[in-house]
Amino acid sequence: MSLRAIEWDEHKETLKLLDQRVLPHQSNWIECLNEEDVAAAIAAMVVRGAPAIGLTAAYGILLAAIQAVKNHEALWPRLKRAEKMLIAARPTAVHLQFTLEEMLKGAEQLEDSDKTISYLLSKVRKIEQEDSLSNRNIGAHGANWLQKRRGKQPLVLLTHCNTGALATADFGTALGIIRTLQERGSISNVFVDETRPYLQGARLTAYELEAENIPYTLITDSMAAAAMRLKKVDAVIVGADRIASNGDTANKIGTYSLAVLAKAHQIPFCVAAPLATFDWSLPSGEKIPIEERPAEEMVIWNKTPIAPQNARVWNPAFDVTPFEWISAIFTEEGVIESIADLERLHQRNTPSITM
Amino acid sequence: MSLRAIEWDEHKETLKLLDQRVLPHQSNWIECLNEEDVAAAIAAMVVRGAPAIGLTAAYGILLAAIQAVKNHEALWPRLKRAEKMLIAARPTAVHLQFTLEEMLKGAEQLEDSDKTISYLLSKVRKIEQEDSLSNRNIGAHGANWLQKRRGKQPLVLLTHCNTGALATADFGTALGIIRTLQERGSISNVFVDETRPYLQGARLTAYELEAENIPYTLITDSMAAAAMRLKKVDAVIVGADRIASNGDTANKIGTYSLAVLAKAHQIPFCVAAPLATFDWSLPSGEKIPIEERPAEEMVIWNKTPIAPQNARVWNPAFDVTPFEWISAIFTEEGVIESIADLERLHQRNTPSITM
Repeated sequence: MSLRAIEWDEHKETLKLLDQRVLPHQSNWIECLNEEDVAAAIAAMVVRGAPAIGLTAAYGILLAAIQAVKNHEALWPRLKRAEKMLIAARPTAVHLQFTLEEMLKGAEQLEDSDKTISYLLSKVRKIEQEDSLSNRNIGAHGANWLQKRRGKQPLVLLTHCNTGALATADFGTALGIIRTLQERGSISNVFVDETRPYLQGARLTAYELEAENIPYTLITDSMAAAAMRLKKVDAVIVGADRIASNGDTANKIGTYSLAVLAKAHQIPFCVAAPLATFDWSLPSGEKIPIEERPAEEMVIWNKTPIAPQNARVWNPAFDVTPFEWISAIFTEEGVIESIADLERLHQRNTPSITM
Repeated sequence: MSLRAIEWDEHKETLKLLDQRVLPHQSNWIECLNEEDVAAAIAAMVVRGAPAIGLTAAYGILLAAIQAVKNHEALWPRLKRAEKMLIAARPTAVHLQFTLEEMLKGAEQLEDSDKTISYLLSKVRKIEQEDSLSNRNIGAHGANWLQKRRGKQPLVLLTHCNTGALATADFGTALGIIRTLQERGSISNVFVDETRPYLQGARLTAYELEAENIPYTLITDSMAAAAMRLKKVDAVIVGADRIASNGDTANKIGTYSLAVLAKAHQIPFCVAAPLATFDWSLPSGEKIPIEERPAEEMVIWNKTPIAPQNARVWNPAFDVTPFEWISAIFTEEGVIESIADLERLHQRNTPSITM
C-alpha cells in the first residue's frame, strides 16, 4: 500500500492533510474545516502535486457545502465563491480548475441540501478513484514504453520533485511508472533530484522510495548532468502541472533544465500526466501562468538565513519545457510522441475548460 | 576593498581563517597554530576555492616551520610531512600541490632556521601578491573578451559557486571579471546559482556582491536553464579547480550542467583560472581525481535531516566539463579558445608538477 496524504474523516466531516512541508522529519496532520482552510493549505504547500491539489480542492467544495448547510446559507453562491478561492490558491496547475468544474457540474440543479452533499461526496470519491486508476494506467503505458525502448534489463531512471502517492490520490504519475517497473523487477536505480527550493525530492520522493524498498540515490539538482554523463541513466521521467495544446509542459522548476540535459546526453525525456493536466484552451506554453513563490522559501532554512538579508531572489515555482524537448508524454489513454498524437488526443477529449 | 578571509597574525605567528561554513549568518574566525589545524580547516571547508586553499596551505607550511623551530625538530622532514598532509586535505584542486611545491622550492638548502622561516614568509607573501595580481589580469582579459564578444552594453551574467575574494587571496577569478566589469559600469545583473549542497553562491557570492553593490539575483541551481531561456543571459562564467592538458576542466559540481545548458542556449560558457590551475601532467579530465564528500553535507541542514535517515546519496564535490563545451578560459596570460592556444600556453609553461 502506498502512503496517503489526504484523508476524509466521515464522522467529523473534516479533511485531514498530511503536512508535506515537514516530512519526513515530522508526520503532522492538519485538519481543514472549510474551504478557507483548504485554500490556505494549498497555498502554503501543505499539500502539493497537481492531482493531489485537485483532489484536495474537491474536498474544499464538499466542506463549503457542508458549512453552508450547517449555517443555513444559500448553497450555490457559496460553492461558486469557494471555487474561485480555491482556484486562486495555486495558479499554474490546471488540474485544480478542471476538478472543481467537474465537482460543480450538475450540482446547481439539485435543490435539496442533503442530496447536494451526498452528490458532492460521491463525486469527490469518484475523482479519487479515477485518479488512482488513471495513475495505474499511466504506470503501465510508461513502463511498457520504457521497457520497449530501453530493453528489458533493469533500468536506471532519474526523476525530479515528487510525483508519487503524496502528489496524487494514490500510486503516483512518474513515480507510478517507477512503481510499476519495480513490480516487474525492472528498476536498477532511481536518481532522485533533491528539488530545491522545496526539496520535494529529498523529503518526499526519497521517503516514498525508501518505504517501498525501491533502490534510489539522492543527488542535488546540479548533479543530474554528471549523473547522465557518468551513471548510465536510461531515461528521465517527471510529472506535469499543465500541458498546452502544442505539448509544451509546465512542471516543477528544474524540469526544463533536465529536458535540455537529457537531449544533450541522448536520453529519453518523458512526462507522466493524466488527461486533466492538458489545457486545450492554451495554444502554447508561453501562455501558462507561472507562479512566483516568496523569497523566504529560498533564503530561509529551518529559521536560519542562508543568504544576505534582503537578497534579491527569483523564485519561479515552475518552468515550461517546449514539446520539442519531450520524447513522450504518458497519459491514462496512451503515449503521445508527436503533434499528430496530441491532435488525436485533443479530438477525443473535447475542450472542457474555458479560461 | 574586497573581503579578506585569510589573515596572518604576525605578532602571534598564527593564521586566522574566516569560517566560510557559517557566512553570512555568522562571522567567526578560526585560529590555526600548526599544519594539522590548517589541513583540518581545509578538509572541513572552513576555507574553500582553489587559490584560497593553495594560499592557506602555504601558510600551513610556514606554521610547520615555526613549530619545528620552537620544538627543536628537524625542519625539512616536518615540512615534507606537512606538505603530504596538506595535499591530502582536498584531492581535486591542483593549486594546492602547485603552491606547496613552490613554497618548498629552495627551502631545503637553507640551513639556518630563522632564515628558512623568513624565506617561507616572504614566499607566502609573494604567492599572495601574485594571486591578487593574476586575478586582476584575469579580470581584465575576461572583461575585454566579454565586452568584445557581447557588445559594450551592460551584461547579464550567470555564475556558480564562489570565485571571489573569499575563494582567492583577493579580488577573485570569475568574480574578479564581474568586479572588473562593474568598475567599467558594464554589469546589468548577475544571476547567482545558490550552489547546493554547500550554498557557496547563496552564502558567499551573494554576500560579496551585496558588499560591493553589484546587482545580482539569487536562483536555485535548477533555475539556471530557465534564466538562460527567459532572462537574456549574455554569458556564464565560473572558476576551476583543475584543468587537464586538453582543457577539460574540473570545477564545483553543477558546472558541467551549466556548460551543456549554455551551449543549448547559444550562450558563451567561460572559465576563469590562474595558470596554477593547469595540470599539464594529465592528458584529459578523466584522470582528475574527484572528491566525494560525506552524505551529511547533503542531507543534514542546520542539524535537521532533510531526507530519510540513511538515504543513499551521491555527493561528488566537482564535475568535469570537457573542453569542447568551453568557449574560453581566461588566464592571467590571456585567453584560451582552442587546442592550439592550449598547446602554446603549455609550451610557455613547462610542466612543474609531477604526479
